[in-house]
Amino acid sequence: MIVRYANHTSLAAVSDSSLAIVLRRSPRGLPEESDFAMVEQPLGEAGDVLVAVEWLAMDPYLRVQLAGRHLAPPIKEGEVIPGQGVGRVVASRLPERFPVGSWVVGALGWRERGWLFADAILPFRFPEEVPLPARLGALGMPGLTAWAGLNKAGLRAGEVLLISAASGTVGLVAAQLGKARGAWVVGISSAAKLEALSAFGFDALLARDHPDFRIRLGEALPSGFDVYFDNVGGSVLDAALDHLRRGARVILCGMIAQYNSDERPAGPNLGRVIAARASLHGLVVYDHLGEHEAFLAEVLPLWRSGQLRVPEQIHRGLEQAPRAFCALMRGEVLGRALVEVAGHA
Amino acid sequence: MIVRYANHTSLAAVSDSSLAIVLRRSPRGLPEESDFAMVEQPLGEAGDVLVAVEWLAMDPYLRVQLAGRHLAPPIKEGEVIPGQGVGRVVASRLPERFPVGSWVVGALGWRERGWLFADAILPFRFPEEVPLPARLGALGMPGLTAWAGLNKAGLRAGEVLLISAASGTVGLVAAQLGKARGAWVVGISSAAKLEALSAFGFDALLARDHPDFRIRLGEALPSGFDVYFDNVGGSVLDAALDHLRRGARVILCGMIAQYNSDERPAGPNLGRVIAARASLHGLVVYDHLGEHEAFLAEVLPLWRSGQLRVPEQIHRGLEQAPRAFCALMRGEVLGRALVEVAGHA
Repeated sequence: MIVRYANHTSLAAVSDSSLAIVLRRSPRGLPEESDFAMVEQPLGEAGDVLVAVEWLAMDPYLRVQLAGRHLAPPIKEGEVIPGQGVGRVVASRLPERFPVGSWVVGALGWRERGWLFADAILPFRFPEEVPLPARLGALGMPGLTAWAGLNKAGLRAGEVLLISAASGTVGLVAAQLGKARGAWVVGISSAAKLEALSAFGFDALLARDHPDFRIRLGEALPSGFDVYFDNVGGSVLDAALDHLRRGARVILCGMIAQYNSDERPAGPNLGRVIAARASLHGLVVYDHLGEHEAFLAEVLPLWRSGQLRVPEQIHRGLEQAPRAFCALMRGEVLGRALVEVAGHA
Repeated sequence: MIVRYANHTSLAAVSDSSLAIVLRRSPRGLPEESDFAMVEQPLGEAGDVLVAVEWLAMDPYLRVQLAGRHLAPPIKEGEVIPGQGVGRVVASRLPERFPVGSWVVGALGWRERGWLFADAILPFRFPEEVPLPARLGALGMPGLTAWAGLNKAGLRAGEVLLISAASGTVGLVAAQLGKARGAWVVGISSAAKLEALSAFGFDALLARDHPDFRIRLGEALPSGFDVYFDNVGGSVLDAALDHLRRGARVILCGMIAQYNSDERPAGPNLGRVIAARASLHGLVVYDHLGEHEAFLAEVLPLWRSGQLRVPEQIHRGLEQAPRAFCALMRGEVLGRALVEVAGHA
């Protein structure tokens, strides 16, 4: 239910209250407008800076916060939606850091005005020429996200960069930065947006909602990808993992595929990996055979001193190998199962 | 079906044939002894070195190779099982690299003797004091696997190290090396092995087959883990991901949980991450807010030149925010959705 007020800007300029949009009820599945309500709220007095909001940005992560699954605290019913925005300081208890008239960015909230604490906002340090919308988009937090992700992935010229949710701000910036850095860029989006996306320099574009998506992904990545910038998780991530090049890096940045769902997806929950800034590394021992001397230098002293011990379950005779192997696969072995072949027929 | 031969060692020493264990039929689920057969085979002439096998090691990865899902080529019916072993060179066409009487290690195969190519074997460089079984275990490939994994994870003193399949050779070496490096080590194994494992210095041990495993894992990791050495995948990996500390590293080394299954597990297939030596990294933009100047230094020139563009969908008036957000979550936005608040009541 949206309550509309006429002439509320003049009211905001003089009164001790502000219009704000609050959570009316937690969305189930896709959010609806009736999950929100516009109300008039007293400004209160708690906070360092009174900010007049000029622009608000719509971010998918708010959906996760509404569900109580984000890093930031959950949004409760009746609370102002804590969306990102830019605004101007209209009153300040920290005038040196936040002088009246200066610009700030942060989770200002869906409201006209509000008192905010200093730790929730940052002063703008943008060149004057950059318009406010760009400060909230390509040159703001989503752009920084794309840039930081490509840096973390160590994208190099000539590599193949795959991007999901390629039509979002993060995806679009990642794609164009990737091209500028000399990568071959493959984008994934919904079929409805592919035509519009074709103007943004992608080397290939794929519809995730096409019935042959998995086949087409393989055709677009004949030798796999080096970097996957993943904003969606779910089945698209799963399909992408079929095309990892050796040494590929996957940046887990968002899980839009599951934002609207109350169900936890099947299998390992990689959303936790994002929240923890964790990393998962595939290990194949063959890559380390050349390090055997360094390995022995560390473990041999431990082995000699008895600090390193592994029980051995020894079977005598080649013909025992199948039995030994089957027992191992039934989980019956502690330590190492070995077969002594020579001299034990 | 195992065919037993009497007195075959003397036969092997003189004849042009060797006893060998071949795959009789591809196992379904848990392998059974009847999936293998012992046969007498001609030695043939192809190869650089004739090796007499002395010891064979039983490795879980062979199960994956039997299913045709390993990095190494699948094992076909009628082929010798290509298990790891140590043996002695009894004839050599490369006598400088592999003199007769010298030791070699590699996938020698489940057989008494066989011709092998030089690229499939390595000469031993072990101190004489190390007995052959240890060369195939704690001080061999599984030990190297554990050591390389802890190195890749960058385990530091004082960190919490979690290990699955803690009763296997890789797990036991990882645990004892972890203790030697000053970590707090938590092991996961089947309940049947916990008592025997208690002699190996673990700080805590957990039964993965206990009905309260997930609860107990949380109790054993009150502030999470820094490094998880994962040998099993599946539901244990999934449970572990609930306890990632910030900046945690997961080493994906094996997926025993799914080795005996023909079914592909639900969710993202992390087995591919192992094969590709790939890495997955969680990204949270908040960690990068301090890099904003460096970000602008790269993107602002691109933005100025028009190489970086993001379409903006601008809504006028605070009351439009719910509509703008709901459209975003329905996937209807290309680029950035913004609400202009000031001056648009």
